Amino acid sequence: MATSNIRRFLFGEPFPTSRETHERLDKVRALAVFASDPISSNAYATEAIMSVLIVLGTGALQMTLPLGLGVAGLVLMVIFSYIQTILHYPDGGGAYTVAKDNLGRLPSLVAAGALLTDYILTVSVSAAAGVRAVTSAFPELVEFRVWLALGAILLITWVNLRGVRESGSVFSIPTYAFVGGVLVVIGIGLVRYWGWFGMTPIVPQVHEVVEGAHLTGFAYIWLLMRAFAGGCTALTGIEAISNGTKAFKMPESKNAAQTMVAMGFMAMSLFIGITYLSTHLGLVPEVAHGESILSQMTREIVGTSFLYYWVQIFTALILFLAANTGFQDFPRLSSFLSKDGFMPRWMQNRWDRLVFGSGIITLAVVSSIIVIIFHADEIAMLPLYALGVMLSFSLSQAGMFRLMGRISKLKPGEVLDTKFTKVHYETGTGWKRAINAVGSVVTFIVFLVLMATKFTEGAWIVVLAIPLLVYMFMSIDRHYQQVREGLRTKGVSSMDFPEIADVVVVPMGDVNRCSLQALMYAKRLSRDVRTITIATYPEVLERFKMRWERFPDITRDVSLITIDYDFRDILTPLVEYIKQVTNIEFPDKMITVVIPEFVSDNILENLLHNQTANILRTRLQVYQDIVIIDVPYQIGRDNKAKQNLHPTPSPDHIVIAEEDQAEEFQEGETETV
Amino acid sequence: MATSNIRRFLFGEPFPTSRETHERLDKVRALAVFASDPISSNAYATEAIMSVLIVLGTGALQMTLPLGLGVAGLVLMVIFSYIQTILHYPDGGGAYTVAKDNLGRLPSLVAAGALLTDYILTVSVSAAAGVRAVTSAFPELVEFRVWLALGAILLITWVNLRGVRESGSVFSIPTYAFVGGVLVVIGIGLVRYWGWFGMTPIVPQVHEVVEGAHLTGFAYIWLLMRAFAGGCTALTGIEAISNGTKAFKMPESKNAAQTMVAMGFMAMSLFIGITYLSTHLGLVPEVAHGESILSQMTREIVGTSFLYYWVQIFTALILFLAANTGFQDFPRLSSFLSKDGFMPRWMQNRWDRLVFGSGIITLAVVSSIIVIIFHADEIAMLPLYALGVMLSFSLSQAGMFRLMGRISKLKPGEVLDTKFTKVHYETGTGWKRAINAVGSVVTFIVFLVLMATKFTEGAWIVVLAIPLLVYMFMSIDRHYQQVREGLRTKGVSSMDFPEIADVVVVPMGDVNRCSLQALMYAKRLSRDVRTITIATYPEVLERFKMRWERFPDITRDVSLITIDYDFRDILTPLVEYIKQVTNIEFPDKMITVVIPEFVSDNILENLLHNQTANILRTRLQVYQDIVIIDVPYQIGRDNKAKQNLHPTPSPDHIVIAEEDQAEEFQEGETETV
Repeated sequence: MATSNIRRFLFGEPFPTSRETHERLDKVRALAVFASDPISSNAYATEAIMSVLIVLGTGALQMTLPLGLGVAGLVLMVIFSYIQTILHYPDGGGAYTVAKDNLGRLPSLVAAGALLTDYILTVSVSAAAGVRAVTSAFPELVEFRVWLALGAILLITWVNLRGVRESGSVFSIPTYAFVGGVLVVIGIGLVRYWGWFGMTPIVPQVHEVVEGAHLTGFAYIWLLMRAFAGGCTALTGIEAISNGTKAFKMPESKNAAQTMVAMGFMAMSLFIGITYLSTHLGLVPEVAHGESILSQMTREIVGTSFLYYWVQIFTALILFLAANTGFQDFPRLSSFLSKDGFMPRWMQNRWDRLVFGSGIITLAVVSSIIVIIFHADEIAMLPLYALGVMLSFSLSQAGMFRLMGRISKLKPGEVLDTKFTKVHYETGTGWKRAINAVGSVVTFIVFLVLMATKFTEGAWIVVLAIPLLVYMFMSIDRHYQQVREGLRTKGVSSMDFPEIADVVVVPMGDVNRCSLQALMYAKRLSRDVRTITIATYPEVLERFKMRWERFPDITRDVSLITIDYDFRDILTPLVEYIKQVTNIEFPDKMITVVIPEFVSDNILENLLHNQTANILRTRLQVYQDIVIIDVPYQIGRDNKAKQNLHPTPSPDHIVIAEEDQAEEFQEGETETV
Repeated sequence: MATSNIRRFLFGEPFPTSRETHERLDKVRALAVFASDPISSNAYATEAIMSVLIVLGTGALQMTLPLGLGVAGLVLMVIFSYIQTILHYPDGGGAYTVAKDNLGRLPSLVAAGALLTDYILTVSVSAAAGVRAVTSAFPELVEFRVWLALGAILLITWVNLRGVRESGSVFSIPTYAFVGGVLVVIGIGLVRYWGWFGMTPIVPQVHEVVEGAHLTGFAYIWLLMRAFAGGCTALTGIEAISNGTKAFKMPESKNAAQTMVAMGFMAMSLFIGITYLSTHLGLVPEVAHGESILSQMTREIVGTSFLYYWVQIFTALILFLAANTGFQDFPRLSSFLSKDGFMPRWMQNRWDRLVFGSGIITLAVVSSIIVIIFHADEIAMLPLYALGVMLSFSLSQAGMFRLMGRISKLKPGEVLDTKFTKVHYETGTGWKRAINAVGSVVTFIVFLVLMATKFTEGAWIVVLAIPLLVYMFMSIDRHYQQVREGLRTKGVSSMDFPEIADVVVVPMGDVNRCSLQALMYAKRLSRDVRTITIATYPEVLERFKMRWERFPDITRDVSLITIDYDFRDILTPLVEYIKQVTNIEFPDKMITVVIPEFVSDNILENLLHNQTANILRTRLQVYQDIVIIDVPYQIGRDNKAKQNLHPTPSPDHIVIAEEDQAEEFQEGETETV
């Protein structure tokens, strides 16, 4: 078919299910796929701290480095915690699985809701930020920014629907180019700042000291906390690898843990390097979306050189592509939730190219809607961002704290089988627990600070969305439980099913080949066949009856029921009659309705018919006790060919030849049903 | 149901079919409904002539009145022709019917295509013009003009879906208020201009004579023709009454003809009055959408008084409501075309309130799309407008010319029965033919001039659309002819239908209550029941077989066919198998497929299932020889109630009780099919 050709052209040949394990990422590609989000946050994390501190005046900017080191410490704790998670949960799942195994159902669903929210925002924010980078270079494109952001999401969706390995290759280049570029800049910066190798040292910028607000006591601490919380955007995306362990080549756990270490090392080198240099070079953040700190720093160190443009271009690209991590994480977490019955079951279906297509499409649609609502303005979306991730970090580390507690009770050689993993005796659980406890508490405080400071700017949306998602998860779970209950075969025998009543109803709008064929099928099924027709005009009814009597060999023994109806929705009296048969005449039995149906393999041609048959089927389908039979009749088919198979007519074979042409002309005018 | 309550709230109680003849318009309402389009064109028709003449300089504006009188003469001819049409075709139909009866199929379809195009543009142009009137008053609304125009179309759609009489009442006020207001202004203007009743005469504005281009010979004549063609926008909408005869109260023809005369009188009074006064007062059209001639004239005569605002407000309203005539004409003409088999048959269905709902919705959608494409800029749409109407006028009058010729051959007392009407002997056919001939030729010339001068500005769209519509009409006609042919019952007997093969295929994804119930139904139908299951994973197949063997009383005598398949679209091998059964095993017979189906009357709950059953049905429906049976199974239904009806188990009633719980947990995970 044409559609399947288009599908193949767009997405490539389908992969067999058995190929699943081959469709994995090596470490180099995995780092690029998973790291673009956390690494790209270096483009703004330092600035996020400074832009809060500047309220106190330029002098307060000296606090940036200590706060940055604090953030880096937190990052290390979180990374440590997630490496533990990867090693103890080789099947992946991150915060959701850890919380489910150690804290219970509700915390795990909260973690899942928080993560899904954040993945959606990752896509929206990153696509919008990437477009802003483009429109900074080409200001004439500003009015198309929503379309550009949607186009970017569409492009990433397409790449992801083609399958994971290819998207890994596509996304490797900008990630490594960005990291490489910024590291070279930091290297040159350090050399020049310290005047190593005989270089002329850079003279730090000296600004007039601008006095800011004077804050003391709690207000001062609160401001420092806000600055710290701002810097915590550097943490977003760190958890991705723990969810995606299954995307790694074998041995999955080990490869994932090593990639995590590499990612943490890279991200922290960049973060500390940028923070160190930008404070020591005396840079001051510019208000209202002016030049970024990263851009200022690069220009200060290498001038407006080739390297400057390199960093700027790949900053734009990596921001753009950070959206891709959402496309790795969201479908995967959705499939976990789906397997557990908290999301629709089709979320776990792998599409032609073994990707979780429904998750990809859902994410693309929701993040596009957010881009449209916020007019692709990532500054307006930022207050919603990072909240969810902090909540999930906190829950995940609380879970690991609990798991370490359980492990600490094991004796050497003993194995604990939680429902989700097998853990062995290990040493050092004491300090591991301590790190997890601190990490959990600090990330929870960051969550609270972000929520409190950004609530009115939009964070309330996330605060509302997470419980709604949790409610949805639980409703879906309840429904699937009902289904399981309903489909149980325990103790079932043939006697448990409703009896089938010996009655067949055939709605007929007109007597023609199509409806007569359906009537013949109905007569095979039952002795009690009832044809029902709705008479809206007396003339139509008369013509119907005249034709009816012309086919005694087919209509014999069939009751003809006519209903006068002075409105045009003929389906209502039809459905009423059928309901009466099933509810009053044959309660607790199944009845059968035979629907004559035109068919055509041409979609356009189908538009030319009333779709009465389809609508009737839809209206009857909600009733338990009605079996619906579609008897198709294809227009333009040569029925003579069939006739030749039965050369000898049966005795009651009657040919009516004296019909007049004028009447034939009318036949197509009424629909079959 | 909730949806039907909403429907009733929005559109009111459904009307019985027998009410049809009551739902008619009296003359006062009919005039308002049909006249808003031609009368509203007085808001710009005079200006359309002047804005072409101004190219020659202000001196050339003196040509406005003669050209205006020429246009008025043409209007009278067209009105005369249409009165003849109404009297000779009391069932209505206008240009389409007249052309069909007198010129043949192709010209009638061209007329229909031209009219439909123009009705759509009437809606788009009028809605946009109405919004421009609003935004002139409230400039801050300009950026919402597309939304306002779409809102206006939605509102008019809603009123029309409620039924014709109510829309007549709603639209009476602005039409009469506009006509009355402008007539009063013209009256005062004449009185003051001539200084009757001792009034101080108005002194005409004296402008410096601006010299324009000097044109001679053909170029000059061409310019006059363009000015004349521009003035012909005054003709748009005149034909509406002839199409809508059926909307009038009895006696339809007579009422319609009288309304036509009244409309012509009103429109011409306004047109000549405005043209006379604006030229004699020395008004000059302002370029680039400045103040309109009508507004200038009104202010000159009555100052910026209450009457000035009255005229301005109702100019805006009548322009807005002229869109409504499209909603009267388009659905009616579509229903004529549909009855003749040139448009989808559902176009002639009357909805709850006896309106042609599909036509109304189609018109609303297409005109909204045009509004969006043209950004609600009616100036940009005008080149597309009036073309179609001129073509249909020309064809209609050519048809009347032909009819008059046929009538002229009748003897007194003789009656000619064309296929569409009965005509009697009448006198004066000679001069009636002459008027029709002149009218037809002149309107055709206007059509050519409009096409030639506006082609590159957008008229090409209409020139392309009309043949495409004609092609569509003919394709639809061909399809319905095929359907009629296929459904013919002439010479049909029970032997002409394909035999039904003794085989039933039951696709099953899992063994559960739902699929077992379907299997039991299948076993009633045939001795050769084949269950087919697709094995994507060996474990799934094993579980399936284990359960299968647990129900010997149901699965006995059923063949179980399993197909290994290493892709995830399990429907493909299923459909392949079924096609093989129907094409190879039982060619020329009908086979039966039983589809087990979950049902739920909750739409949200249905989203939680794979819809595999629905997709399978859709894929099988295109095949002629496959009867499809849906056996429904409702989740959450109390099956125990059924069981009580059969208290005595049959001998082969086997209860399996030793299932383990863990397995039961799995049951919901696979879809039924």
